[in-house]
Amino acid sequence: MRFRLLLLPLLLAGAGYAQLAPAVAARQWSEMHQRGILDEFVELLRIPNTGEDPALMRRNAETIARMFARRGVETRLLEVEGGPPVVYGEILSPGAIQTLVFYAHYDGQPVDPSAWITGDPFKPTLMSGPIEAGGQPIPLPRPGWPSDPEWRIYARSAGDDKAPIIALASALDALRNRQVAIPSNLKFFFEGEEERGSPHLVEVLEDHRDLLAGDVWFFCDGPVHQSRQQIVTFGVRGVTELELTVYGPRRPLHSGHYGNWAPNPAMILAHLLASFKDEEGRVLVEGFYDDVIPYSEADQEAIAATPEFDDALMREFWLAETESPGLRLEEAIGQPSFNIRGLASGAVGEAARNVIPATATASIDIRLVPGMDHQVTVDRVLEHIRKQGFFITEREPGEQIRLAHPRVCKVSRGPGYNAVRTPIDSDLSRRVIAALEQAHGPVIKLPLMGGSLPLYAFEEILGAKTIIVPIANHDDNQHAANENLRLQNLWDGVETMAALLSLEPAQPE
Amino acid sequence: MRFRLLLLPLLLAGAGYAQLAPAVAARQWSEMHQRGILDEFVELLRIPNTGEDPALMRRNAETIARMFARRGVETRLLEVEGGPPVVYGEILSPGAIQTLVFYAHYDGQPVDPSAWITGDPFKPTLMSGPIEAGGQPIPLPRPGWPSDPEWRIYARSAGDDKAPIIALASALDALRNRQVAIPSNLKFFFEGEEERGSPHLVEVLEDHRDLLAGDVWFFCDGPVHQSRQQIVTFGVRGVTELELTVYGPRRPLHSGHYGNWAPNPAMILAHLLASFKDEEGRVLVEGFYDDVIPYSEADQEAIAATPEFDDALMREFWLAETESPGLRLEEAIGQPSFNIRGLASGAVGEAARNVIPATATASIDIRLVPGMDHQVTVDRVLEHIRKQGFFITEREPGEQIRLAHPRVCKVSRGPGYNAVRTPIDSDLSRRVIAALEQAHGPVIKLPLMGGSLPLYAFEEILGAKTIIVPIANHDDNQHAANENLRLQNLWDGVETMAALLSLEPAQPE
Repeated sequence: MRFRLLLLPLLLAGAGYAQLAPAVAARQWSEMHQRGILDEFVELLRIPNTGEDPALMRRNAETIARMFARRGVETRLLEVEGGPPVVYGEILSPGAIQTLVFYAHYDGQPVDPSAWITGDPFKPTLMSGPIEAGGQPIPLPRPGWPSDPEWRIYARSAGDDKAPIIALASALDALRNRQVAIPSNLKFFFEGEEERGSPHLVEVLEDHRDLLAGDVWFFCDGPVHQSRQQIVTFGVRGVTELELTVYGPRRPLHSGHYGNWAPNPAMILAHLLASFKDEEGRVLVEGFYDDVIPYSEADQEAIAATPEFDDALMREFWLAETESPGLRLEEAIGQPSFNIRGLASGAVGEAARNVIPATATASIDIRLVPGMDHQVTVDRVLEHIRKQGFFITEREPGEQIRLAHPRVCKVSRGPGYNAVRTPIDSDLSRRVIAALEQAHGPVIKLPLMGGSLPLYAFEEILGAKTIIVPIANHDDNQHAANENLRLQNLWDGVETMAALLSLEPAQPE
Repeated sequence: MRFRLLLLPLLLAGAGYAQLAPAVAARQWSEMHQRGILDEFVELLRIPNTGEDPALMRRNAETIARMFARRGVETRLLEVEGGPPVVYGEILSPGAIQTLVFYAHYDGQPVDPSAWITGDPFKPTLMSGPIEAGGQPIPLPRPGWPSDPEWRIYARSAGDDKAPIIALASALDALRNRQVAIPSNLKFFFEGEEERGSPHLVEVLEDHRDLLAGDVWFFCDGPVHQSRQQIVTFGVRGVTELELTVYGPRRPLHSGHYGNWAPNPAMILAHLLASFKDEEGRVLVEGFYDDVIPYSEADQEAIAATPEFDDALMREFWLAETESPGLRLEEAIGQPSFNIRGLASGAVGEAARNVIPATATASIDIRLVPGMDHQVTVDRVLEHIRKQGFFITEREPGEQIRLAHPRVCKVSRGPGYNAVRTPIDSDLSRRVIAALEQAHGPVIKLPLMGGSLPLYAFEEILGAKTIIVPIANHDDNQHAANENLRLQNLWDGVETMAALLSLEPAQPE
């Protein structure tokens, strides 16, 4: 069954028929159908999506495709060699003068079930509040009964990034049911390997340039503002990863018999890592900041108009100071970051033994801002490592290399991509802001998001503008254990998606 | 049955009866009884001894007690509240003018079975050589058949420290069977919690001062020289442990949304650890070296007479340089060490996620040399941490402490004890050297061992001299996975123990 845009002719004819504002339609709809929306969400969250099992990834994709097909969306899976399929869907309307594309991803970060309060990241559990505040498991509300806006659903990808998929589906229901006009062609694109750095995304975009063409791609990912206000963001940081391993003795040695004779790799790593940043958080890699394009005046105005939330965040995170003293969060993320994701050497706690470990490893991610190139940046990092006296290798170094070089660093380069930014004062940006403010009142407008999405490819390959409209709560434990979505963020998200799905086209000049 | 020293009266009477040298008796005995010795060793190695299960520790103790009782030793278990029992044994001879005490420990370091080639550290396995050189599992030699001296038994504590227990038992068999005189009272003391820092040792020594009195305690622990020569060591480094945890955000945060705003604990830890040592391996803690008593002239002569093995060790361990450039190993261990045993923060490898971790932890052990006090040393380390701007707490810091202090370090102080050293040119030291050289030819004499044993307590409480006579191979993977004992070290060890058991008393002046 094709979803028919019943009211479109009326709207195009300029009929005076009183139409509901999209967000009002969405609100009325979701208030009446909370349980149904939650049931569909739970069904989706129940399917593991960490990417180890291709069959499970396909089950995610097929479930989403069915979900949208039920709503009259023409769906298909775009197959990817060696990766999970993309779910594609479209509703084309003859005469539409703009095409909107909606992006979300259905894969999630790896999980450590033992760290989850539910013991299972794929057993979606409604809680009476955040677990840190004593939230307890509760049953889903009865059909027709209201839920508390502060309840939360705990599951991997509840926030990142299955929530927007459910919100879009529910918004389609609302607009159709309330007969709200949709003056655009709509396309949907749900990716299954964003958390792995989207290794096949470029290939998919290149293989389907025409199918995926659009005026703007809306990226529905990430959290809203810490103040809980709706946010719209006009750029993203890029990202790249690398892992560094340094070496001590070939095998762990007794720390008494060889201590202060055999080099300790953990100490070598500490010196290397400390060399990357000064005590003020400034990255010391030569040229690291050289290509950074600073914020425009409009960008800075938008940030200035955003409520400052640093103090509240610091209290929430138990931080006495930040790593960027003098810069508020929105300013800090206008700069690139150098983040240690993990350290490992020997053992700590009860498992610690009196040895000099054989190796020490650090996993690193770097966030890039507009102007920076991810490969150039990693090259500069490697040059910095060389300047600290290390011989660099990309493979496990054997006897010959180890005996020839006092300092050896194995570097594994992960995937990466660059940042992008859409001018915040363009006509498109202004129409999007207007639609969202009609739904929510004043929204927060930011030139750049701290997190990363592979938006560069959409601009480069499809020539599309990109704008990010997230719906998840900022405290959703994204990427960590006990990820969750606050219910009010879901209801607000349905309104947000309804507002975007019915975005006004550009006025003819 | 009490072991009767049949030939003692003859010897004391100065009879001209040709007596076998102790080491010769031991060699002849063990050559004929290799399989029996190995069977008894395997039986003992099969009993897990990491200390988690008190019942297993008791099974170790009871097995050893039975082993010595069978040889006529009067045995008993010295019970310890909250720890495994000490196995005590004695053979007292009326008229003996000296008392020798033999120490070993039957507990072992924690194990990670997945890192063992046998998959089970308590399934003793004879291998045709070191696994690094392609050693393969082989059956035990048939009774009466010879073994290859390069075969090795793999099991936790094969080297550290059950080997000397078997060697002592076999040496007693040899001396008794070949009717070699033992002109001393003999005592045996086998501890069960050395690897945990001997938390009840002082209590046991204080509770049994008379029972444990002796002229000298021989500590049969650690490895022989890297050249495979027998070694006798006249001191040990002390040791103490501590664990440091530093803090970032209260929970792991998305590294994009908060990267270079929220402080990264792994980077904070890297800076802290790097502050402890300069690039030349010198510890930068103020006063760290202040109380060090340097080697005497006799100490330095003994070291100079020891074959230098650094180059061979560096090749073996794939090291292009050491942490103490210009100092050979024996000199380096004359200094205290500051060793990072383990690092942990977030995750590395496949499990790495794009987060700013909440904490970062380093486990540290410090080796002390004569003159240093372990508590004073740790106090100095803590003072160093304070000088780096940290607030120090011994308990998990809550919201109030975290919000009040930009840098918080939780310190867990482990157990510790001081170094001791017996003058290498004393009469006792000379007689011990003579006995060992009669057995082995020239032996290596060292003023200090790099590893640690709680010898301070024996000197302080019992007034006994302490001398270390190890038997394990230096490449026994002590404290690590795939611990092993080279068979020739076991046979040599039986000779060594026979030489010590029959040590000549001091000549009347």
